[in-house]
Amino acid sequence: MSASAAPSSALLTDRYELTMLDAALRDGTAERRCVFELFGRRLPGARRFGVVAGTGRFLQLLADYRFGEEELRFLRDHRVVDADTLRFLEQYRFTGTINGYREGEAYFPGSPILVVEGTFAEAVVLETLALSVMNHDSAVATAAARMSVAAGGRPLAEMGSRRAQERSAVAAARAAYIAGFAATSNLEAGRQWGVPTMGTAAHAWTLLHDTEEDAFRSQVAALGVGTTLLVDTYDIAAGVETAVRVAGTGLGGVRIDSGDLPTVAAAVREQLDRLGATATKITVTSDLDEFAIAALAASPVDSYGVGTSVVTGSGSPTAGMVYKLVARQDAAGGWVPVAKASTDKASRGGRKAAFRTREGGTATSELIAVSDGFERMATAVDHPEARALQVTLVEAGETDPAALGPDGVARARRHHAEIREELPVKALALSRSEPALPTVFVDVE
Amino acid sequence: MSASAAPSSALLTDRYELTMLDAALRDGTAERRCVFELFGRRLPGARRFGVVAGTGRFLQLLADYRFGEEELRFLRDHRVVDADTLRFLEQYRFTGTINGYREGEAYFPGSPILVVEGTFAEAVVLETLALSVMNHDSAVATAAARMSVAAGGRPLAEMGSRRAQERSAVAAARAAYIAGFAATSNLEAGRQWGVPTMGTAAHAWTLLHDTEEDAFRSQVAALGVGTTLLVDTYDIAAGVETAVRVAGTGLGGVRIDSGDLPTVAAAVREQLDRLGATATKITVTSDLDEFAIAALAASPVDSYGVGTSVVTGSGSPTAGMVYKLVARQDAAGGWVPVAKASTDKASRGGRKAAFRTREGGTATSELIAVSDGFERMATAVDHPEARALQVTLVEAGETDPAALGPDGVARARRHHAEIREELPVKALALSRSEPALPTVFVDVE
Repeated sequence: MSASAAPSSALLTDRYELTMLDAALRDGTAERRCVFELFGRRLPGARRFGVVAGTGRFLQLLADYRFGEEELRFLRDHRVVDADTLRFLEQYRFTGTINGYREGEAYFPGSPILVVEGTFAEAVVLETLALSVMNHDSAVATAAARMSVAAGGRPLAEMGSRRAQERSAVAAARAAYIAGFAATSNLEAGRQWGVPTMGTAAHAWTLLHDTEEDAFRSQVAALGVGTTLLVDTYDIAAGVETAVRVAGTGLGGVRIDSGDLPTVAAAVREQLDRLGATATKITVTSDLDEFAIAALAASPVDSYGVGTSVVTGSGSPTAGMVYKLVARQDAAGGWVPVAKASTDKASRGGRKAAFRTREGGTATSELIAVSDGFERMATAVDHPEARALQVTLVEAGETDPAALGPDGVARARRHHAEIREELPVKALALSRSEPALPTVFVDVE
Repeated sequence: MSASAAPSSALLTDRYELTMLDAALRDGTAERRCVFELFGRRLPGARRFGVVAGTGRFLQLLADYRFGEEELRFLRDHRVVDADTLRFLEQYRFTGTINGYREGEAYFPGSPILVVEGTFAEAVVLETLALSVMNHDSAVATAAARMSVAAGGRPLAEMGSRRAQERSAVAAARAAYIAGFAATSNLEAGRQWGVPTMGTAAHAWTLLHDTEEDAFRSQVAALGVGTTLLVDTYDIAAGVETAVRVAGTGLGGVRIDSGDLPTVAAAVREQLDRLGATATKITVTSDLDEFAIAALAASPVDSYGVGTSVVTGSGSPTAGMVYKLVARQDAAGGWVPVAKASTDKASRGGRKAAFRTREGGTATSELIAVSDGFERMATAVDHPEARALQVTLVEAGETDPAALGPDGVARARRHHAEIREELPVKALALSRSEPALPTVFVDVE
């Protein structure tokens, strides 16, 4: 087992969540039932669709959200909250309900991705953690989906761990896999989430040996002729020649990590074919993003390795989602829709239910029904092909186990592949644009 | 205590590090002594200086880098490595030496931030983890330092946890503090790293109550008149009036999270003064970056809260550092400087020692002495004011304890404040530019 115990997830929280809890426990509002919604006001990076990711991670962290001795001692010693609040936190369990989009689902501005219902006390403290997880993972998945579109049927491997914080890297590998990547270099993502892992050798491997040929011979001896040899440490043409000489024409693949890739890939393909290595695959891995991938569509490339751009959301490292109180009980127990009024950050009060309308199987709008009341709305709207987008993720504190762990990841990946089929063609273009579907709000009751 | 044990740090690693290890154990090169260097080819985002951060976190993760049962089982079940390699990993301890820049130090293109010496086997497996930590934390610190410069003497609070993966958020709070921020909203950063925490209330607090006045009264009752009230949920002028009426002219502060900040801050200051609340402070928190902070220099603002831009490195979420084999033993035990030859990613072989030359106390260059040999070079160069930049962080596997934990963070923050004084004035400008100091390589021996 590992040497150190995990810090609890409970303090992965902004201080003001606990300060508000503290004051609410004093004035009695802590027990008011509330509806909080997690949504994005816009899509990251003027994309045409967003991809929901992180749901399964958030639900696991929620299940583990406990204030233990160490956390309580910190809050006491630093006088963050008073003794009553410490007692409340010691007993904290989320007993409310969370409805939301399936992981892997497409989303648009205003989509109610998570709808959290519970007392103010139990729901407010989840704001920071829910946003941290969903903002990061959805930003990565949204970028990864575009790369997957750009790659056509060619497989993509995520290999950006070194360009992301060490735990973000695991989450990023998971999110990219949900959005269509085939594998990751990150071993922990393999262990924890069941993402297939890949990788053979770096330049250091070649440099460690007295000659490139020594390095290739040793790698083939250890990993077999099906391995992929990195051929660009010194001179690519000489590297390819040595690779085929050492491994034979059955060599699995060569990797190119530098140079002008369209030119280099064409030359390497021509050389491999000339040497008889017609089945040897070419993988390229040098600073690729969705645009570079698209530009290689006509090149003889068999697979792509993507690093920095996918783990940093290709220019949009956070999805910018917010977690807002949209409805609450008043002192008499009646329901009140609430929203901030400021002009530049206004939000829409009232509980939401979301549907994707379709025509002939193709999505036409994100239809969001808004209610002033608390009762759940009908799960159907008056539209022949509307699909309800929300499912129950947590019911009275109990999490749907199918959303958790590697099985949840596999399910999210399948769901994403399915729903991508219903997106209109214009959603798949790479250029900056408006969202591919309009968000339509409809008041009900 | 927390509910779940930490996954070990050992699998926060690209698969190819272990594949190379596996092959090296078979061919005997695993025992060759090596020097790896961690450096950036350029500064993130065309900045004028970089800030080293993450060192203390990396050293802690290195001390905890152990392959436990779970990790070994994963590697065995997925046939990542063979039985000999599993035995090696089970016993793995880093026994080498790491010299490097102090945490908080400025760096420039080519600066040898970490120099890792050991066998190939023990040093190669650290590549991914070292880069994940240093690339993320240094990107945040580099952005944070510019914000700190832009803020002049006004305090900055980091409050971007919700826009970063939940564990990145803790690392980002730590890095921003090292680079000059005064506090964070992130409670775990307070517990784990000793960063001062802050925060009072969100819009949800006001919306939870039947009136804004109820919310303010309750907050003042819980936190005292010294608290900061968020005044922009409905109408700012009405909010300020209510705030002073409720708390009195001794109100600690008001926070503004929307609107055109120079205009709004001036109006709020005028209103507060008119109401007699002349000592009440104004803090602003709406989508600030270094440029927005600089633009508020003439506005009556007392402190800044910064979210998204600092935790995402203000456009450069990763520092782009690499970890390269620069020297190794050959079969006969002699030392060979090595480097990749490809034109677009060439690196410079040979062991490096780094100095900052100064004139009259102001830094003039990053002087890097390059040696073909393995023996450590003299820690002085022929320059009257040169300062040696590298210190011993790990000696024969033993980590300098002063670099670890909250004490290490406090030390790094002091060191950063000190070295910022020696940077030339042009380093402090915000516009895109060349690095403020030239990097000068000098061959020795």
